[in-house]
Amino acid sequence: MKDKIRILVVNDDGYFAKGIHALAEALSGIGKVTVVAPDSQKSAVSHLLTITDSIRVREVPFSDGIKAYAVSGSPADCGKIAVASLMKANPPDLVASGINLGNNAGLNAIYSGTVAAAAEAAMAGLQAFAISLDAFSNPDFGPAADFSVKFAKYLLRNPLPKGIVANINVPALPAEKIKGFKISEQSMLRYNEWYASRNDIYGRSHYWLEGQYAAVNDGNADSDIFALAAGYISITPLHFDLTSRKGIEILKRITL
Amino acid sequence: MKDKIRILVVNDDGYFAKGIHALAEALSGIGKVTVVAPDSQKSAVSHLLTITDSIRVREVPFSDGIKAYAVSGSPADCGKIAVASLMKANPPDLVASGINLGNNAGLNAIYSGTVAAAAEAAMAGLQAFAISLDAFSNPDFGPAADFSVKFAKYLLRNPLPKGIVANINVPALPAEKIKGFKISEQSMLRYNEWYASRNDIYGRSHYWLEGQYAAVNDGNADSDIFALAAGYISITPLHFDLTSRKGIEILKRITL
Repeated sequence: MKDKIRILVVNDDGYFAKGIHALAEALSGIGKVTVVAPDSQKSAVSHLLTITDSIRVREVPFSDGIKAYAVSGSPADCGKIAVASLMKANPPDLVASGINLGNNAGLNAIYSGTVAAAAEAAMAGLQAFAISLDAFSNPDFGPAADFSVKFAKYLLRNPLPKGIVANINVPALPAEKIKGFKISEQSMLRYNEWYASRNDIYGRSHYWLEGQYAAVNDGNADSDIFALAAGYISITPLHFDLTSRKGIEILKRITL
Repeated sequence: MKDKIRILVVNDDGYFAKGIHALAEALSGIGKVTVVAPDSQKSAVSHLLTITDSIRVREVPFSDGIKAYAVSGSPADCGKIAVASLMKANPPDLVASGINLGNNAGLNAIYSGTVAAAAEAAMAGLQAFAISLDAFSNPDFGPAADFSVKFAKYLLRNPLPKGIVANINVPALPAEKIKGFKISEQSMLRYNEWYASRNDIYGRSHYWLEGQYAAVNDGNADSDIFALAAGYISITPLHFDLTSRKGIEILKRITL
């Protein structure tokens, strides 16, 4: 299996991040891994695409036996250029994005570069998942890396319908404290956030987005945020058909 | 009505773009318009949020009677800071984004800053629409501007459920050639695109995303791209719950 399976690993924290090393090294136990990742930190850039500028790609040192490319663009650029160009001759069987430092549950999924990089692969018809750890400091990527291997083996045997990304969020707990996994919905809970306004030393104001970004229980027992807060790994299947069927029903009655 | 209705106008092409002037001026006929827009061109940046840097906001000259702010961040930053900070004391009754130069039908909706700016308002519980013109050169924003007024009046009388953005795409036709409007689904048609690889004068390679981005008939009579190609204005209600219900059904059977 190992020689035949090709796995593309992407992320948004950059090719040098500990999380992508943990993911790529874990997955190299079940296949041949190629890393294509941003050359700098690119969090919260969502599906940003570089369309009016060039993209540079260079091979960079990584762990033993893993070929890695650093890309001057966004996470979505990485997913797109890997599939459309760098691995065109030998497309990956599976695409894994992460392990992100910080959860991508709830509305974070919309802004996440980690999810967007996997989404590019999914929209190209490939099997893809994103995996994120609900921690900002002292991360232990071990449990998430172990779970990524289990889930990768599952996806390879049981492909999802085209266009779906499995968005996995792992609580920041030691393996023995994690209660299992739950198939979850994306929470629509909004964060408590605000813009702080301050002056620089020249007296000119600037704004800074601040908020409380902990995954708190949102009261929806089916949500990803609820699962995380309760000590479960959440797995949320995402797609990118944004059409609101409820909206269609309502607007069908419009007269202008 | 005009003195009471507050309308926020945002975009992704920048506060100086002809499309936002056309939209703001048209809507100022039915309410008091405030413009909050990027200080530079920000196409295809999707829901990019500025979270690790400051944001500058400055008042800029605009058309008579319209207060306008230029923001150093992304379209989503504009939507977010307008609602959460600049207009916090007097929230808008309606948020309009555009008029974008280039359609935001189909998968473009995912990458669009125009849609993302409106989405920030919708996720904050406000009525919001995005409007885009299916043209790249010699744009006549007139028909789209006229339609935005009609649709704004409709939304003010008939608010959509919270969290929905009406994504409007207008064909590049004279008003008399536009056949009407259709309530549409987001097309999932992928573009024919590729990365061109070239060398600079130092012999170093770079990539450039190229493709054919015309709105072609995708064969789905219910899609936004089909409607546009057939000469109709498409109105597609979008939401930002990305959960795939089909994916949930499948993954519920998972064993790891």
